Amino acid sequence: MSEEQQQTRVPGRYGLDEIAANRLEAWPNPNPERDYVVHLEIPEFTCLCPRSGFPDFATIVIDYVPDRSVVELKSLKLYINGYRDRQISHEAATNTILNDLVTLLGPRWMRVAGDFNVRGNIKTIIFAEYVAPNYSGPRPEYRRHMTGSSL
Amino acid sequence: MSEEQQQTRVPGRYGLDEIAANRLEAWPNPNPERDYVVHLEIPEFTCLCPRSGFPDFATIVIDYVPDRSVVELKSLKLYINGYRDRQISHEAATNTILNDLVTLLGPRWMRVAGDFNVRGNIKTIIFAEYVAPNYSGPRPEYRRHMTGSSL
Amino acid sequence: MSEEQQQTRVPGRYGLDEIAANRLEAWPNPNPERDYVVHLEIPEFTCLCPRSGFPDFATIVIDYVPDRSVVELKSLKLYINGYRDRQISHEAATNTILNDLVTLLGPRWMRVAGDFNVRGNIKTIIFAEYVAPNYSGPRPEYRRHMTGSSL
Amino acid sequence: MSEEQQQTRVPGRYGLDEIAANRLEAWPNPNPERDYVVHLEIPEFTCLCPRSGFPDFATIVIDYVPDRSVVELKSLKLYINGYRDRQISHEAATNTILNDLVTLLGPRWMRVAGDFNVRGNIKTIIFAEYVAPNYSGPRPEYRRHMTGSSL
Amino acid sequence: MSEEQQQTRVPGRYGLDEIAANRLEAWPNPNPERDYVVHLEIPEFTCLCPRSGFPDFATIVIDYVPDRSVVELKSLKLYINGYRDRQISHEAATNTILNDLVTLLGPRWMRVAGDFNVRGNIKTIIFAEYVAPNYSGPRPEYRRHMTGSSL
Amino acid sequence: MSEEQQQTRVPGRYGLDEIAANRLEAWPNPNPERDYVVHLEIPEFTCLCPRSGFPDFATIVIDYVPDRSVVELKSLKLYINGYRDRQISHEAATNTILNDLVTLLGPRWMRVAGDFNVRGNIKTIIFAEYVAPNYSGPRPEYRRHMTGSSL
Amino acid sequence: MSEEQQQTRVPGRYGLDEIAANRLEAWPNPNPERDYVVHLEIPEFTCLCPRSGFPDFATIVIDYVPDRSVVELKSLKLYINGYRDRQISHEAATNTILNDLVTLLGPRWMRVAGDFNVRGNIKTIIFAEYVAPNYSGPRPEYRRHMTGSSL
Amino acid sequence: MSEEQQQTRVPGRYGLDEIAANRLEAWPNPNPERDYVVHLEIPEFTCLCPRSGFPDFATIVIDYVPDRSVVELKSLKLYINGYRDRQISHEAATNTILNDLVTLLGPRWMRVAGDFNVRGNIKTIIFAEYVAPNYSGPRPEYRRHMTGSSL
Amino acid sequence: MSEEQQQTRVPGRYGLDEIAANRLEAWPNPNPERDYVVHLEIPEFTCLCPRSGFPDFATIVIDYVPDRSVVELKSLKLYINGYRDRQISHEAATNTILNDLVTLLGPRWMRVAGDFNVRGNIKTIIFAEYVAPNYSGPRPEYRRHMTGSSL
Amino acid sequence: MSEEQQQTRVPGRYGLDEIAANRLEAWPNPNPERDYVVHLEIPEFTCLCPRSGFPDFATIVIDYVPDRSVVELKSLKLYINGYRDRQISHEAATNTILNDLVTLLGPRWMRVAGDFNVRGNIKTIIFAEYVAPNYSGPRPEYRRHMTGSSL
Ligand SMILES: [Ca+2]
Ligand SMILES: [Ca+2]
Ligand SMILES: [Ca+2]
Ligand SMILES: [Ca+2]
Ligand SMILES: [Ca+2]
Ligand SMILES: [Ca+2]
Ligand SMILES: [Ca+2]
Ligand SMILES: [Ca+2]
Ligand SMILES: [Ca+2]
Ligand SMILES: [Ca+2]
Ligand SMILES: [Ca+2]
Ligand SMILES: [Ca+2]
Ligand SMILES: [Ca+2]
Ligand SMILES: [Ca+2]
Ligand SMILES: [Ca+2]
Ligand SMILES: [Ca+2]
Repeated sequence: MSEEQQQTRVPGRYGLDEIAANRLEAWPNPNPERDYVVHLEIPEFTCLCPRSGFPDFATIVIDYVPDRSVVELKSLKLYINGYRDRQISHEAATNTILNDLVTLLGPRWMRVAGDFNVRGNIKTIIFAEYVAPNYSGPRPEYRRHMTGSSL
Repeated sequence: MSEEQQQTRVPGRYGLDEIAANRLEAWPNPNPERDYVVHLEIPEFTCLCPRSGFPDFATIVIDYVPDRSVVELKSLKLYINGYRDRQISHEAATNTILNDLVTLLGPRWMRVAGDFNVRGNIKTIIFAEYVAPNYSGPRPEYRRHMTGSSL
Repeated sequence: MSEEQQQTRVPGRYGLDEIAANRLEAWPNPNPERDYVVHLEIPEFTCLCPRSGFPDFATIVIDYVPDRSVVELKSLKLYINGYRDRQISHEAATNTILNDLVTLLGPRWMRVAGDFNVRGNIKTIIFAEYVAPNYSGPRPEYRRHMTGSSL
Repeated sequence: MSEEQQQTRVPGRYGLDEIAANRLEAWPNPNPERDYVVHLEIPEFTCLCPRSGFPDFATIVIDYVPDRSVVELKSLKLYINGYRDRQISHEAATNTILNDLVTLLGPRWMRVAGDFNVRGNIKTIIFAEYVAPNYSGPRPEYRRHMTGSSL
Repeated sequence: MSEEQQQTRVPGRYGLDEIAANRLEAWPNPNPERDYVVHLEIPEFTCLCPRSGFPDFATIVIDYVPDRSVVELKSLKLYINGYRDRQISHEAATNTILNDLVTLLGPRWMRVAGDFNVRGNIKTIIFAEYVAPNYSGPRPEYRRHMTGSSL
Repeated sequence: MSEEQQQTRVPGRYGLDEIAANRLEAWPNPNPERDYVVHLEIPEFTCLCPRSGFPDFATIVIDYVPDRSVVELKSLKLYINGYRDRQISHEAATNTILNDLVTLLGPRWMRVAGDFNVRGNIKTIIFAEYVAPNYSGPRPEYRRHMTGSSL
Repeated sequence: MSEEQQQTRVPGRYGLDEIAANRLEAWPNPNPERDYVVHLEIPEFTCLCPRSGFPDFATIVIDYVPDRSVVELKSLKLYINGYRDRQISHEAATNTILNDLVTLLGPRWMRVAGDFNVRGNIKTIIFAEYVAPNYSGPRPEYRRHMTGSSL
Repeated sequence: MSEEQQQTRVPGRYGLDEIAANRLEAWPNPNPERDYVVHLEIPEFTCLCPRSGFPDFATIVIDYVPDRSVVELKSLKLYINGYRDRQISHEAATNTILNDLVTLLGPRWMRVAGDFNVRGNIKTIIFAEYVAPNYSGPRPEYRRHMTGSSL
Repeated sequence: MSEEQQQTRVPGRYGLDEIAANRLEAWPNPNPERDYVVHLEIPEFTCLCPRSGFPDFATIVIDYVPDRSVVELKSLKLYINGYRDRQISHEAATNTILNDLVTLLGPRWMRVAGDFNVRGNIKTIIFAEYVAPNYSGPRPEYRRHMTGSSL
Repeated sequence: MSEEQQQTRVPGRYGLDEIAANRLEAWPNPNPERDYVVHLEIPEFTCLCPRSGFPDFATIVIDYVPDRSVVELKSLKLYINGYRDRQISHEAATNTILNDLVTLLGPRWMRVAGDFNVRGNIKTIIFAEYVAPNYSGPRPEYRRHMTGSSL
């Protein structure tokens, strides 16, 4: 959120406005000389089912090795809030988040997990992964990141 | 959902339509001769903050002793879905759900807990309770209903 | 199961036959001079939804203070198996189990909890309780009995 | 479920009818350019023991890397419901589910786990896996997926 | 175990001999001027089913307020080991342990819980309690003591 | 935070400024006709030991029944942040928070728990409680509120 | 258990007789064309200490990839019951179970874990493994299978 | 520890010296006008068995309502360390700690729990309680405080 | 802390003084002939956000294989306390701690994880790793170290 | 403990004497033809800090593949008890236990973990490992074995 935006906050509206105006932001990586891992969890993802329009809920889990940029967290939160009124499938949502972040950050490696709440008695988690050519540094083991389920 | 509504489902829209058209329904209590307790948990409540418009998330936990009616579960789920676009405080949402269910069902006793996700590093749970005059039957102990917290 | 029944077992069928032929059995209480509590959990209750015919799953939890009789466990298991093809609501199933056991055993006190799996994102537990006139002995606190949920 | 099927629902019967009429459905994979993993859990599998006819219960856990198709979740749920009256062993049920899904989807990689409830004081889990020729993409570590057990 | 017994230990036999020769022992209560609570758990109770001869397993949990005596722990352990070859029901075992300890110790208050392993898919816990006339001191709340179960 | 304050935010400083300028705020209770309970947890309390100056850490847990006012959450968070540079004992911090909130809100009932991290291998929790004259409504049971401890 | 054995059951004795008469049985593998894993847990192993005669308790955990045979579960349970009166060390019991099952089934791969209860304040788990020549299929990671321990 | 003691610390010895020289200290209660509860847990109690000399381990849990004094925590820790070389029974240790703290602090109410590690396969917890004449303020429910056990 | 520092402690100040005067200390490795792993967790890291000045909280987890030196724990704790008034990002804090410890100790291998509390509904963990040239000894698997989160 | 030692037990002293007289004992490996793993946990290790003399507490976890010998468990427990009055660092204690057991048993592979309780708010675990030349059999994954910690 820019300084300008902040000064024109309309009470009862500024959250909605910030989400609508938001663009994912990249910040400079303070330690580009090292391959290190950033792990992020965002438990309040919600969107609408493309088939029925009923709400879906998920936790989005992101692991990445930054190159020149790291993602700015408030813009990421608002980006995730922006799915609230979109109709999108589990598979497409997870892959879209990965595509958008890879485009923004150009990471050395990134994995996105979409850990969706049970629907029709079926639990779904989607894992999508990107690796830059020639990258061979750290990469956390392939495991489950489960929030709010009994797994 | 009536048979009629079901026959006119618009693909990609019928969930939204069902939520908009929904009315809380009461069904007859099959065992009104006994004071017994119904415990319900609905983990995917979401509304908008009345101050900022940012989304809030909660689990709604309901305990009640029915008199002549029990609540129909699908209509309850759609009723809860209906808060998705409302701007309402934690205290008001919890009390409103209690008021609406007491009006519909006329229970002997009812308690609603709104277990809200952390905001600004503060965890909030609201407990609101109704008791019919002269009721003295079972009433579960006053305890925490926590979803997704470490308590 | 009598000796006779056992000798005529049809391979691949005798389980189905035992369930159909079963009657709840009472055995004499070895210690009727004392008010003591029996706690039972039966995690594989399944029946059919009276509205849709889809299967429902629950754990049945029974606490009671026996008077002259205790319930025989194998007949109880088969009795519970007998709900597999019945269409019955959460409230009615829990109250019926309580009624059948009270009729059979004449306990001093009994509580049945039907801890049903989530449906339509709503978790339901039903608690129904019987107390004989003038009984004032031990009675476990009114709390949740949860199997396979994160509560 | 087609629109047509939906219009002829018989109250108290349509769930049974849907299960009987169901066929597993494949949907197009929205991101076939990427090797990504879909993780599914279906906690309410029940079938009948081929030896005795008594009911068995399990959680079915599926991990796969889709190629051109993903499985449609409601048809999968109904397919799993369809085992309710079949007499089949733990090993055969797990392998059959894998075979049916491989035939339907032609995945790059798939693993099915049948996590069965305790019988005769023995806990059983069956793991069966398929890999397409030349596939070398992501493959979650070989671990336990346990729902409702104390493991 | 007396010094004498200890000197004649037969390798590979003395455990069996100690269990056979054991008698429950009482020791003097070091603080009889105060009503205080002793809580004991013995997780390796095993006996034989009176109906079939198959082994049963339980955890025995004992709470008591001593009067002039406390139970000696090694003799209690051997006493519990002594049920290994007895055929006895869940109800009778729990009540017998309570009766034997009340006779030995004359406590102000005592409760015994027999937390039995699942049999035929049913979990059983038996609670039996004794209170001396006129006793009105501390008495832990009536709750579950669960070992190795998911409760 | 007033609109004015918000417009003059100094980058890298405004958090510090907000904490320094903060005053606890009361908002009107939307449902004063009902006795209901608000439960709050604030896990990041830190202050300095009055004896040594070393940092202490705690979770503050607040339960209250509002009368005419509820506490505004952002001002509460900033109030708690304001202890960061104060030297104060466990007992005094917990009682001071209770006194300040009782003065501000005039609640019907309030309890504050200070759940402090281990120091010198000792774990400390302080519970302090206020009740208005003649109040007899709901009051959650006296239990532990533990965050980040193994209790 | 054959039909014949079943017809001559002596009440109060037939469990003991079945255990004594039992022989481990192999059944045909329904899917020998695939390398798949069977995971079994048997929580009620008990034997006698070879040194003292005191009872020992363990959970036996078995993982294997069948070749032409799978183990029949009731005969396995009775085989495990057969250790009740044997004096055998932790190391020898675990290796003997592995040897007996390898001889019976000729598996492609098998691992047995004996997870013994604490003795003398020491917790012991024994892991023993067999692999057929040239086998290179699935093999679950080397991890702990813990029942009733805090690991 | 006095300033003087601190200045003469002998490297490799001062801990032993502090424990030997320690005396339990009382500090003034900062809020004597209110009945509030202090909860303390000390997980590293160890002493020697009076019968055999073998080490015993426990967690000591203390709840009290202070009157004019609170206990100083470092002196309490050193007091507990002082049991390391004493031979004392479970019952006597718990009661002695209660007696010493009641003598020092003159509290309105106090309860001490000695949660001892398993010995001879038996788990023991001792609860001892003191109440000043005429005290009727808060008193936490009588429950288990378990550290490091699976209960 | 040197002997000298210790003798001049100012009551109410010496903790603050020790933190200000502290320098990370290395001690000789008692077993340099072996590649072994030291695992450290420091749960009370707090600093200030470089953007807003609001406090941040984290657990710092360190794994390393020492060469000639190990880190002295009290100096490490004071070093971590020294971040309390610094404005620093999650990424920079984690990398700076790694850089400072690598400079001090010259380890064979080291990994630092900064497990930060949720901010703006996003959970962040940063993993940074150093490996000396030619090192090929033990290196714990790359996994999550979570303190106080529900992960 | 030899027969002779056992016959001269002094009441109130024999535990202390056994610890003083103890020597670690090796027993023959019953299955030297196989590479199998023994896992041991000993939760009640305590020693004295070499710097201050204050007590330290740890759980010692041992994994090894025996060659010709296995360790006798009672002598191991007494060996661990023998550290109670020694002043030794975390690193040295863990390495010394490994060295003593490698000397005694000549194992094919062994790892010792010293899981120490928190001191000065820092949690420490030390992992030390030995491998015989040319050994390439099973070796459990490098993970944490935590007892009584929240990890
Ligand atoms: Ca979820
Ligand atoms: Ca989870
Ligand atoms: Ca929550
Ligand atoms: Ca919870
Ligand atoms: Ca459930
Ligand atoms: Ca299961
Ligand atoms: Ca059990
Ligand atoms: Ca339990
Ligand atoms: Ca805490
Ligand atoms: Ca165990
Ligand atoms: Ca386990
Ligand atoms: Ca313990
Ligand atoms: Ca505990
Ligand atoms: Ca955290
Ligand atoms: Ca953790
Ligand atoms: Ca520990």
